[in-house]
Amino acid sequence: MTTPSTHWVLSFVCADQPGIVHAVSGAIVTAGGNITESQQFSNEDTGRFFMRLQVETNASRDDFENALRPVTEKYAMSWSVDVVGRPLRTLVLVSTAAHCLNDLLFRQRAGQLPVETPLVLSNHNDLADLAGFYGIPFEAHPVTDAASKAAFESRVLAAVEEHDIELIVLARYMQILSPELCATLAGRVINIHHSFLPGFKGANPYKQAHARGVKLIGATAHFVTTDLDEGPIIEQNVVRVDHSRTARELVAIGQDEESRTLTQAVKWFAEDRVLLDGQRTIIFR
Amino acid sequence: MTTPSTHWVLSFVCADQPGIVHAVSGAIVTAGGNITESQQFSNEDTGRFFMRLQVETNASRDDFENALRPVTEKYAMSWSVDVVGRPLRTLVLVSTAAHCLNDLLFRQRAGQLPVETPLVLSNHNDLADLAGFYGIPFEAHPVTDAASKAAFESRVLAAVEEHDIELIVLARYMQILSPELCATLAGRVINIHHSFLPGFKGANPYKQAHARGVKLIGATAHFVTTDLDEGPIIEQNVVRVDHSRTARELVAIGQDEESRTLTQAVKWFAEDRVLLDGQRTIIFR
Amino acid sequence: MTTPSTHWVLSFVCADQPGIVHAVSGAIVTAGGNITESQQFSNEDTGRFFMRLQVETNASRDDFENALRPVTEKYAMSWSVDVVGRPLRTLVLVSTAAHCLNDLLFRQRAGQLPVETPLVLSNHNDLADLAGFYGIPFEAHPVTDAASKAAFESRVLAAVEEHDIELIVLARYMQILSPELCATLAGRVINIHHSFLPGFKGANPYKQAHARGVKLIGATAHFVTTDLDEGPIIEQNVVRVDHSRTARELVAIGQDEESRTLTQAVKWFAEDRVLLDGQRTIIFR
Amino acid sequence: MTTPSTHWVLSFVCADQPGIVHAVSGAIVTAGGNITESQQFSNEDTGRFFMRLQVETNASRDDFENALRPVTEKYAMSWSVDVVGRPLRTLVLVSTAAHCLNDLLFRQRAGQLPVETPLVLSNHNDLADLAGFYGIPFEAHPVTDAASKAAFESRVLAAVEEHDIELIVLARYMQILSPELCATLAGRVINIHHSFLPGFKGANPYKQAHARGVKLIGATAHFVTTDLDEGPIIEQNVVRVDHSRTARELVAIGQDEESRTLTQAVKWFAEDRVLLDGQRTIIFR
Repeated sequence: MTTPSTHWVLSFVCADQPGIVHAVSGAIVTAGGNITESQQFSNEDTGRFFMRLQVETNASRDDFENALRPVTEKYAMSWSVDVVGRPLRTLVLVSTAAHCLNDLLFRQRAGQLPVETPLVLSNHNDLADLAGFYGIPFEAHPVTDAASKAAFESRVLAAVEEHDIELIVLARYMQILSPELCATLAGRVINIHHSFLPGFKGANPYKQAHARGVKLIGATAHFVTTDLDEGPIIEQNVVRVDHSRTARELVAIGQDEESRTLTQAVKWFAEDRVLLDGQRTIIFR
Repeated sequence: MTTPSTHWVLSFVCADQPGIVHAVSGAIVTAGGNITESQQFSNEDTGRFFMRLQVETNASRDDFENALRPVTEKYAMSWSVDVVGRPLRTLVLVSTAAHCLNDLLFRQRAGQLPVETPLVLSNHNDLADLAGFYGIPFEAHPVTDAASKAAFESRVLAAVEEHDIELIVLARYMQILSPELCATLAGRVINIHHSFLPGFKGANPYKQAHARGVKLIGATAHFVTTDLDEGPIIEQNVVRVDHSRTARELVAIGQDEESRTLTQAVKWFAEDRVLLDGQRTIIFR
Repeated sequence: MTTPSTHWVLSFVCADQPGIVHAVSGAIVTAGGNITESQQFSNEDTGRFFMRLQVETNASRDDFENALRPVTEKYAMSWSVDVVGRPLRTLVLVSTAAHCLNDLLFRQRAGQLPVETPLVLSNHNDLADLAGFYGIPFEAHPVTDAASKAAFESRVLAAVEEHDIELIVLARYMQILSPELCATLAGRVINIHHSFLPGFKGANPYKQAHARGVKLIGATAHFVTTDLDEGPIIEQNVVRVDHSRTARELVAIGQDEESRTLTQAVKWFAEDRVLLDGQRTIIFR
Repeated sequence: MTTPSTHWVLSFVCADQPGIVHAVSGAIVTAGGNITESQQFSNEDTGRFFMRLQVETNASRDDFENALRPVTEKYAMSWSVDVVGRPLRTLVLVSTAAHCLNDLLFRQRAGQLPVETPLVLSNHNDLADLAGFYGIPFEAHPVTDAASKAAFESRVLAAVEEHDIELIVLARYMQILSPELCATLAGRVINIHHSFLPGFKGANPYKQAHARGVKLIGATAHFVTTDLDEGPIIEQNVVRVDHSRTARELVAIGQDEESRTLTQAVKWFAEDRVLLDGQRTIIFR
């Protein structure tokens, strides 16, 4: 009796050395697999090896993992196995700006973004109807002082637990997460910063960009770390502007870049295309 | 006897108020002129009005200026009149990198850049043959200490005097100009900075960009002021890069952006399309 | 008693000749107006002059138009006067694809697109809920044969009449309009074609693009004329793709370009920035 | 005694089936090699498998090829082995336009383009000095009729023979190659077409683009086949233009895209990154 063919996505990270590809591909042959997509990168500075594969096989998950395990142990690999296209359980945090949430939910429903969103959390009530239109539960909890902020973050952690959340997206959530929350969720929180980092860190980046008279404005999707606006960058985009644009117009123009940059970063993360390499990211597009 | 028709470019800057366009266009009618290109901008923040016109007329320069003078006096305008396409007398400063100089001189000879370059000055001898190929006089003066730096800057000032220089281009000239020289030549020196300012000010921007893991690298052409890397921005461009690029490769990739960004800025300046508005530029493309 | 200050947008088209700007600006002075934005273009090939102004004045519409009329008559101008930001009455036609409609309605509600949409018409029922979420009346009428097609087009004309429609947007409406309808609505219908015209006219442009192995795919917003896919182009965008993309993936990738290109074209049209110049458009951005 | 380590680039094309990667990587292990760069693609439509590797090994070329041969024979592969960075022997054909040749030779000398150019052939004498500046032999042979055209093509074939030419670049060579020459040199001739194919095939593409009023113009680097302007596309770029540009200005604007597009295509080809897949190209960037 055969298991029906499954399409797997695998990632491997380890110290670089000869023979890794042969060892991994041998395990895949053992499991009756066929490689349909393959990318690798060796960082010469750090000596780390990174690989992402998509493999079709009739083997069960257990058999497949058993075939891979000797290799991953031999090379002391960090590794992951998942099914291609499995929706990632995603928690979205928002405040009042709708454009990023609208883009995420529209694409999720259109089948272009492999995530499922069991909950949207906000410190404002403005986006309740948008979430509702897409049938996503929505909760608003005001954040006005230290106590309410702590309560909000407790709710985040509870929701992560309750829904077995794999990714938290800050879709223009206008509160800074506490260092404790950043640490607890490290590598699982993606933020959209409304500037071309590291150009305009901190608040009011469009106002800064206007004052400086830049000719391109941009957006940056990055992992959240305790070091504000300094987490590893996943994606960036820019758009041309000219002297005639007011700071207020820059805000409107920049929103397109924000939403498409954040959506792109979430898509790559959900497709296991984002690997961390210290302060940098490897993106296997 | 008629003067043959001339194509003029005019710029006007003054405090904004109603009636300026009518007054200027009236003077142009008086001078028998026809407006072929017109752009204007009112900065609501500063209350300044900026205008650039191209006008065809048979009037002589004196007659044309006489027609305009009452208007420019009434509105207390800064203004300029020039002939469209007149080559700007340009001094180019270089060190060892050839790509910007090559692009400038190639386009100058191809008739795509309305400048004439009576001299290239350098602190190294590397680019003598490139200048020579394009028939441009070239001088190298080493800059190794305070005295030789002062001597180099004296040579710059002498050349500016001697050739009646209107624009100084720092085409990857790797020395910082003294505050005195910056002040003397204010508004006439354009530099190319090999990063997307204000992201990576200072030295080794590509190394900084690599360490930070940015996904786009860029170049910035800006006026030189005494405040290093903070002068008004004229043009910026970026190009996409990924994790696989070494810092050294970023340098090579970025050179294309540097040369096209600098050439574009020089072209706009030579066409009287760049007006200063405090720390910002108005670009009438 | 003064009328409160109004912000007007004006357009003028006529045969080019000296003195037009002076005459127009004189009329504006007469009406107590201040020019806040001004763009003009003279087509040397056709000898046509195009101008767009934004003017603030306390004059009433009648007084303003009376001041302008002598000038517009003298130069035999086509001209228009409207209030800046007045929402354009817009009819949207769709079929089953949601991305363009979603983008239009989202931006309309966000206040970024000066249109009001009294009705969405479709030949399918799929997008009823999306229109409903934004509170826009929606009607579906199947188009399956000549009779139902004629009925649909009659409904379009009736809706245009009933709602005094100024713009019809084909937001991935997958039916070809009859020559009669095209003629009746000439200059008022904008379509989004899902290719970089004139590269891939006709049906299945993404399939054509895939077969040809192009490295950039795009979208084109254009006026609808009786000559299919040949109407004047308003806006185009492209995005880079590579060999690994299937024709089906090109469809998904291209949707972003489609929606932003169409929305941009609608925005410019609603802001009176699009003027027709034979088979070409003048866009005063 | 060990051979010093060499950096090899390999390409493999064959019918897709499980086990290829394992077999290839096994041969590389046998040869003591370490994979430093790896890309692969399976075309689901055609069932073809494409792979490009960079491998460091101390093995001699003979030993390396002997290790690979059983695999290439088993899978009936088309394959190639070369040394990374070896300059490709390149013949450049030009007419009168300098921008593409200037870019190619500048980058070749700057060490950014792994080609060596033993000869530039032209049907005009205009670019003799440019070639001379870079120390490249230059020959001009007028092409004015069938006989002179045949003579020119004979000279091309003789030069290909004499210099063991691996790539012929048509750097704005304004003659159509005969079908015989196209056939003889199939897969080795790269042309730059000054439009965004397939938009404006044939002569005067910028004039066509102007008449059609497109908002983006572009350039296409493609392999030359007997089917004019229909050969497999290697790279394309576009640049935004507006209504104010004359057809003549489009020519100047487009030249930047032409030269960078052609140079990019030549660079990828010289780095063995371009594989043919029927009418399409696989580009392993």
